[in-house]
Amino acid sequence: MSKKRMVIALGHKDLGFTLTEQKEAVKRTAVMIGDFIEDGYQVALVFSNAPQVGMIHTAMKDLSEHYPKQYGKVPLSVCSAMSQGMIGYDLQNAVRAELVKRGIYKTASTVLTQVLVDPYDESFYNPIKKVGKIMGPEEAKAEEDNGNHVIMVADGKFQRVVPAPTPKSIVEIDAIKALLDADQVVIACGGGGIPVLRQGSELKGAAAVIEKDRTAGLLAKEVDADILLITTAVDHVSLNFGQPDEKAIDKMTIEEAEQYIKDGHFEFRSMQPKVEAGVDFVQSGKDRKCIITSMELAEKAVEGLAGTAII
Amino acid sequence: MSKKRMVIALGHKDLGFTLTEQKEAVKRTAVMIGDFIEDGYQVALVFSNAPQVGMIHTAMKDLSEHYPKQYGKVPLSVCSAMSQGMIGYDLQNAVRAELVKRGIYKTASTVLTQVLVDPYDESFYNPIKKVGKIMGPEEAKAEEDNGNHVIMVADGKFQRVVPAPTPKSIVEIDAIKALLDADQVVIACGGGGIPVLRQGSELKGAAAVIEKDRTAGLLAKEVDADILLITTAVDHVSLNFGQPDEKAIDKMTIEEAEQYIKDGHFEFRSMQPKVEAGVDFVQSGKDRKCIITSMELAEKAVEGLAGTAII
Repeated sequence: MSKKRMVIALGHKDLGFTLTEQKEAVKRTAVMIGDFIEDGYQVALVFSNAPQVGMIHTAMKDLSEHYPKQYGKVPLSVCSAMSQGMIGYDLQNAVRAELVKRGIYKTASTVLTQVLVDPYDESFYNPIKKVGKIMGPEEAKAEEDNGNHVIMVADGKFQRVVPAPTPKSIVEIDAIKALLDADQVVIACGGGGIPVLRQGSELKGAAAVIEKDRTAGLLAKEVDADILLITTAVDHVSLNFGQPDEKAIDKMTIEEAEQYIKDGHFEFRSMQPKVEAGVDFVQSGKDRKCIITSMELAEKAVEGLAGTAII
Repeated sequence: MSKKRMVIALGHKDLGFTLTEQKEAVKRTAVMIGDFIEDGYQVALVFSNAPQVGMIHTAMKDLSEHYPKQYGKVPLSVCSAMSQGMIGYDLQNAVRAELVKRGIYKTASTVLTQVLVDPYDESFYNPIKKVGKIMGPEEAKAEEDNGNHVIMVADGKFQRVVPAPTPKSIVEIDAIKALLDADQVVIACGGGGIPVLRQGSELKGAAAVIEKDRTAGLLAKEVDADILLITTAVDHVSLNFGQPDEKAIDKMTIEEAEQYIKDGHFEFRSMQPKVEAGVDFVQSGKDRKCIITSMELAEKAVEGLAGTAII
């Protein structure tokens, strides 16, 4: 395999929050992807899904409450599967159209992906990921009575929180590899993948959400990628983010990154998982690079002219 | 490629109507698929999605009505994409578990699939497929004012109807082929595929539903399958179905099948598309066979001992 491989983890900003925004955002995102494909990269895409899974979760929760005889509760894992369909559809379409415009005939498709997590993952004792419907106190109480965790997100407003366990293995990895080997564009592990637990020979959906950056890092290792590109709302990783002495990082080694994490430089729920995923990928093999930047600067960043590289 | 290939079109009965039924039904269905894989077949699966897309359509319609500022209308094509996620998730899981039990390590995955239809397809002038929410008169009126077609399905109860155009080509066919070539189980073209129309270099979702049996027939041609197996609620195709002189057909040639269609032997919305899809597939190449039967008799039917074969 002489072509270089890149796994791209797309953030909310590159996907939009509503369906209308999503259709527009994926078009801009597809231009970046088209550029990388023209530059000779094989590309696998992982996307975030928080706003979309929130919408589906809200719709399904209301559905089972409004028509209790007809429809039962829809587990979060099934909502996650639906969100892979909802986002993948627009994304594969946008990539296809962009490639057709450039005269490139290459299939882009979405593979519905499950990701195995460990039932003893410590995150299960400390749920932190907000998902789904914003609820009033009564609805929140009912949710807690159902055994789910709820936190207050604003005065009198509540939201369910679920654990964010570490991804252990990608169940459909062979499908993703076969498509990359066929030089196609693959969209996989959407929303970090549907989290599943092993139960004998079966897999059972977990009420959890996996950080998509961590899953993207795992995927990058598994497909032996050269580059893990994480697109986000900022142009680069910073030290002392948001403070007067904020300082952009253009390059950091694994050791530097680990020290910065220890020193608490990165926001626990957003930048830290990205840097950790990058470190994990870069140290897993030779000549592996992680780049964290905005979509707009991504191509420059890959050339070493912008963004933050972990090397 | 020395292995024989089979495309299986799974009917509602083999998938269940609610989420709970779905989880149980796909387990039974997976046993049949496991048998065929042990018999040495490469298998691609197409599934029906009417109850599931109905559930999603209902939930999304209510969502945009209850939270109009937050969520816009969700087009039927997006609901169809979500249903591919919802069903594919349970189906690939059930197939995986069944294979693991048998000691077979083979990936089963779902490819989100779009299917191109012709904007001049005559079905667009004659919508017949019922989809989604059962509505009262007022809601039905609002639906019609929105430009959608509605019919009365029971006294004072209405439902939207959409066209069922002929599938012209499968957009992600190269992904499906690559996975079959890698000897994996592929789930694709769920619900007949998301129907799309070509608009310049882009594809646009159509408010339509493609008969999954027709898409399965097209897929079987494209992947050069040996057998198109259509599972349904009955054990075989019959002449004079439901009448005192009903007669099971065990075998029919293309010519016989075409004559039976002309003579109006098959129910227009259920059996006729299956027989037509079978005829179309069988006459498209040498040594191609279509079998229509129940899941329970499928293995026997492939051996020529049950069901109806079109040869």
